[in-house]
Amino acid sequence: MQFYLTKPVDCDFDTAVERATAALKDQGFGILTEIDVKATLKTKLDAEFRPYKILGACNPPLAQRALEAEPYIGALLPCNVFIQQREDGQVEVGVMNPATLVPITGNSALQSVQDEVTQRIAAMLAAL
Amino acid sequence: MQFYLTKPVDCDFDTAVERATAALKDQGFGILTEIDVKATLKTKLDAEFRPYKILGACNPPLAQRALEAEPYIGALLPCNVFIQQREDGQVEVGVMNPATLVPITGNSALQSVQDEVTQRIAAMLAAL
Repeated sequence: MQFYLTKPVDCDFDTAVERATAALKDQGFGILTEIDVKATLKTKLDAEFRPYKILGACNPPLAQRALEAEPYIGALLPCNVFIQQREDGQVEVGVMNPATLVPITGNSALQSVQDEVTQRIAAMLAAL
Repeated sequence: MQFYLTKPVDCDFDTAVERATAALKDQGFGILTEIDVKATLKTKLDAEFRPYKILGACNPPLAQRALEAEPYIGALLPCNVFIQQREDGQVEVGVMNPATLVPITGNSALQSVQDEVTQRIAAMLAAL
């Protein structure tokens, strides 16, 4: 199973970050963390990199259910959403494939959370 | 393969966060993000939860190599390190098992990064 889902978007990088943030909000996900990968690699290594950000998205009721079902789910939280400008210039929004949650953890108590996150992430990507 | 590694520590929760941060630094990992799960669930849901934090740790040279080998690795970055006080009161430090990187992504170009992260995370946990 592919470990990520992705969708190309017809806008510039900064607009894609804004659209992804808004689409996540519509699905009950707030942004808890934001990593500017390009800026981090420039600051730490003086290395050039293409535009790339990683947002840590959290739907609190779903996070609570996940933590109650699996005490070690912190290894996979928050829900990572990334926006990148590919080498060919195409901007895309990606996310860790939520359907990998039960396969990776081996914990079937996460099935209902997986199903709901999968539905919400699909709706988020469709709205971009 | 278990998706996380964990180590119980003989100290209180806040001290464990400090120790984990210092041990990560010794292995070249800075903390880019920090999520206080207990505080987040209290603020967002008025729900009680045990002490639980998630640190987003990043070793910039290793992150750069990972991004060059796999453009969608943003789904799994940064390296999640979590500190929790379990229901039984025991404090432990956990991390996503870096040996799952190639199995999850199916990308063998990540093997050398996986090997180095695995070694550094093992050293970090051993130092706690």
